[in-house]
Amino acid sequence: MASTEPESSQTPPSAGENGSEPANLSKKQAKKEAQKAERLRKQQEAAAAAAASVESAEADPFSGNYGDVPTEEIQSKAISGRRWTEIGSLDAELADRTVLIRGAAQAIRPVSKKMVFLVVRHSVSTVQCVLVVNKECVSPQMVKFATGLSKESIVDVEGVVSIPKEPIKGTTQQVEVQVRKLFCVNRAVQNLPINIEDAARSEMEFEKAEQTGEQLVRVGQDTRLNYRVLDVRTPANQATFRIQCHVEDMFRRFLLSEGFVGIHTPKLVPGSSEGGAAVFKLDYKGQPACLAQSPQLYKQMAICGGFGRVFEVGSVFRAEDSFTHRHLCEFVGLDVEMEIKEHYFEVCDIVDRLFVAMFDYLNENCKKELDAINKQYPFEPLKYLRKTLRLTFLEGVQMLKEAGIEVDPFGDLNTEAEKKLGQLVREKYDTEFYILYRYPLAVRPFYTMPCYDDLAYSNSFDVFIRGEEIISGAQRIHLPELLTKRAEACGIDVKTISTYIDSFRYGAPPHGGFGVGLERVVMLFCALNNIRKTSLFPRDPQRLVP
Amino acid sequence: MASTEPESSQTPPSAGENGSEPANLSKKQAKKEAQKAERLRKQQEAAAAAAASVESAEADPFSGNYGDVPTEEIQSKAISGRRWTEIGSLDAELADRTVLIRGAAQAIRPVSKKMVFLVVRHSVSTVQCVLVVNKECVSPQMVKFATGLSKESIVDVEGVVSIPKEPIKGTTQQVEVQVRKLFCVNRAVQNLPINIEDAARSEMEFEKAEQTGEQLVRVGQDTRLNYRVLDVRTPANQATFRIQCHVEDMFRRFLLSEGFVGIHTPKLVPGSSEGGAAVFKLDYKGQPACLAQSPQLYKQMAICGGFGRVFEVGSVFRAEDSFTHRHLCEFVGLDVEMEIKEHYFEVCDIVDRLFVAMFDYLNENCKKELDAINKQYPFEPLKYLRKTLRLTFLEGVQMLKEAGIEVDPFGDLNTEAEKKLGQLVREKYDTEFYILYRYPLAVRPFYTMPCYDDLAYSNSFDVFIRGEEIISGAQRIHLPELLTKRAEACGIDVKTISTYIDSFRYGAPPHGGFGVGLERVVMLFCALNNIRKTSLFPRDPQRLVP
Repeated sequence: MASTEPESSQTPPSAGENGSEPANLSKKQAKKEAQKAERLRKQQEAAAAAAASVESAEADPFSGNYGDVPTEEIQSKAISGRRWTEIGSLDAELADRTVLIRGAAQAIRPVSKKMVFLVVRHSVSTVQCVLVVNKECVSPQMVKFATGLSKESIVDVEGVVSIPKEPIKGTTQQVEVQVRKLFCVNRAVQNLPINIEDAARSEMEFEKAEQTGEQLVRVGQDTRLNYRVLDVRTPANQATFRIQCHVEDMFRRFLLSEGFVGIHTPKLVPGSSEGGAAVFKLDYKGQPACLAQSPQLYKQMAICGGFGRVFEVGSVFRAEDSFTHRHLCEFVGLDVEMEIKEHYFEVCDIVDRLFVAMFDYLNENCKKELDAINKQYPFEPLKYLRKTLRLTFLEGVQMLKEAGIEVDPFGDLNTEAEKKLGQLVREKYDTEFYILYRYPLAVRPFYTMPCYDDLAYSNSFDVFIRGEEIISGAQRIHLPELLTKRAEACGIDVKTISTYIDSFRYGAPPHGGFGVGLERVVMLFCALNNIRKTSLFPRDPQRLVP
Repeated sequence: MASTEPESSQTPPSAGENGSEPANLSKKQAKKEAQKAERLRKQQEAAAAAAASVESAEADPFSGNYGDVPTEEIQSKAISGRRWTEIGSLDAELADRTVLIRGAAQAIRPVSKKMVFLVVRHSVSTVQCVLVVNKECVSPQMVKFATGLSKESIVDVEGVVSIPKEPIKGTTQQVEVQVRKLFCVNRAVQNLPINIEDAARSEMEFEKAEQTGEQLVRVGQDTRLNYRVLDVRTPANQATFRIQCHVEDMFRRFLLSEGFVGIHTPKLVPGSSEGGAAVFKLDYKGQPACLAQSPQLYKQMAICGGFGRVFEVGSVFRAEDSFTHRHLCEFVGLDVEMEIKEHYFEVCDIVDRLFVAMFDYLNENCKKELDAINKQYPFEPLKYLRKTLRLTFLEGVQMLKEAGIEVDPFGDLNTEAEKKLGQLVREKYDTEFYILYRYPLAVRPFYTMPCYDDLAYSNSFDVFIRGEEIISGAQRIHLPELLTKRAEACGIDVKTISTYIDSFRYGAPPHGGFGVGLERVVMLFCALNNIRKTSLFPRDPQRLVP
């Protein structure tokens, strides 16, 4: 499918640009104006239709089989009762049947003045449609009309399903539609800022092209994001966001089946959230407020509220100036908090079973989506064990030491050390998904429960995928006095979080939890190289649009 | 269960207040300090334990059967392997078996120095536990310890399940636990700001009390919200948020089964969102930004991005100064957007089937929760039809007119008119859930598609539950020129939404959608009188805490 389509210069006037709406809204006058405008519009339309029909009827006996759909028809004029078929369900069983489909004209490939191919796409599915001049329904004018369509225009195609002699390489559906009627519902501009086929190319295609000397357009990350509504039409992107939907769904389904309650906590919070990282500040009716950096304090309060086990899927805001491949200023947090009976390993058990179930599900049920991503961005399936490996932080430090890398046993691992450890773990244990627990207390947030036997360490853990930290979790301090001391020790103004601390004075069960970014799960499971690929409209320090 | 418990004055010292943590975090020194602190702590604890054991061992041979759990035991010291039973699963099948449970001491009712009842609660379940002095395990000191517990303290109870001769009125579980061991995991303060039993009373109880002259404490809405972690422990509140979780889950499950993709759109948006209602403004790295008033523009852009049908569950922010029972400054939006083939009734069909399925599910599967709400806030089950009634706006206006209420046929209905119409519809059609469609264009947002046959009206609808508007939906304008004109006519600076408008230039399918507030669905389904009851931590113009 490397042929390039000629951009047609014959553009019929775009439909739907009629706009004789009343200037506005001054309720009482609205009716009169509307009626006047309506009369005018109808007169104009009738005149235009009459003129057009005289002209084309002479020239083309099949003029009723194609054209631009009049505006009023796409204004919910009527329910025709016609049966629509989804492109994704077009298969050999429908052979010889007449179908009616709608989709975007992804490619328009004229063969001659008497024949043109259209590739019509709807979400992840594409089908080849053929117009050939014949004596029943297709005129040369109709082929000309089809050839003149702009790419990505929305079209309604009525035609008969046929089975081609040879497999069709460039489309998902292995049938062809012999077109009998073709109407354009909405015209795209002639010169799109991104060509979908360019945006969908893999590195391999570029390498091949380089060898053959072919010139291919490379669409940069910024251009993609500027024209995101075009960019996300590629198969890999359609697949990515469907996988994201599955990840969230599996997260919810697993937790619901384990007795968790889904909650929603406020994103507008007083003061400065949990302190630490930069926050987005705003004025809330005269009070200083900020956007929650996580639902941490509130999900713990829900535990104090007696919900036992809770989870939340919600927006998380970080004003950090991180210009990395893995940081966003706004992302979707998947958060869990639960009572524990005896040990924070009860939380690790949930992490373990949840993610193994999720990975299994994705591998078994999202083959098509994973293939689509793989085609553009090739990756190896994630290696993970049936029972997730757990190593202590000090075991990790020791492994790094043996590999010649010294790290502070009371500090945190930097990104490089994490990467290296991921590699060592993979070599030794054959897994790319593991839990590192018992982190130094000094590198964890104030609400983290210290270890009972060594106050320099904490009942906490991080989880890694492909050498990158993805989940942070811990047992929390449920003792208000200890919590106060730790907050003070971490330099937090305790007054600003008094409601939170007081929550533990009314009977608080031991508890723990974890948080993970939805975009990161998808990015790392699919080994994508940038978190902007897994956020529909990403926000980073330099990007607030679209 | 109207007896009032005496507040005990014998309070054993609270556990868990030990806090010899290192002052802080200067990594290198942390280990030494920690070890020193640890040695000190262990010495102190050992001394205290020795002293205590000498004293109590003489006095009480069963001193090992009760007491406060030492701090280190709740710091994930060990996994005992003991089997825990959830209070909610205690039933007659467990008769004569020894169980280990954890919960909050909701009520403590001493009968004598030799006997005390505890009601222990976990999430929505409660069980009666009995301590009676005996020769095997329970001493008078143990009864004294139990009697001295503060209400809402978290306790671990080991005991034998027995079947009482008479049904137990005040608890959900119809078995008793004959206590053998009792440990306090976390002590609540003696004087709680809210007594859970007070917070759980119905109006009927207050009326009865008035007749008998009994004094009952009434907990006001503000006090409830100030101490939300106590307030939400009532059965009605526990039920409310479980129903909220089910509503969201049904919303998702139904839409996923219909081919919708769950998406997440940014809440940080440039400029001033869709215009109109007041927005929360903030500074985004030097750029003016605001919090999204809805995912409207972005969910439409997702449709332009080729996702076909999308939904979103996410935070919505409104800075309006609305002090009503039904407005919040932050709520959870359930949003839907979908391609339509011919008519926006395709959207109404989804609304219809989705909500009927949701109501059916709640009625069939959430009986316990609905009963719990009903007990405190009695309500009639929602009346709805198998096929949701649809009336035009003008039919509604006519019904009101016939009832003597004149409303502007080109204006909007005010809250009173909506209430009245709800009543009329209920009387005439026996339903409290219906769709009113074809609203005046002047009262709808700029992106609403005008009617094909009358530009004073629009392809829009509202949905009502119990006389209150709950859902707004419409066909959207997918024609960029018309969209620009309508935005201008509505006084919107088109430059600020140019990315949105441009999205429709690259081939945009006809589409429509709707939005609904999660809190409102729960409020109106359960006929609660205030939306603050269905928001876990509500935000209104005067409330930013907790």
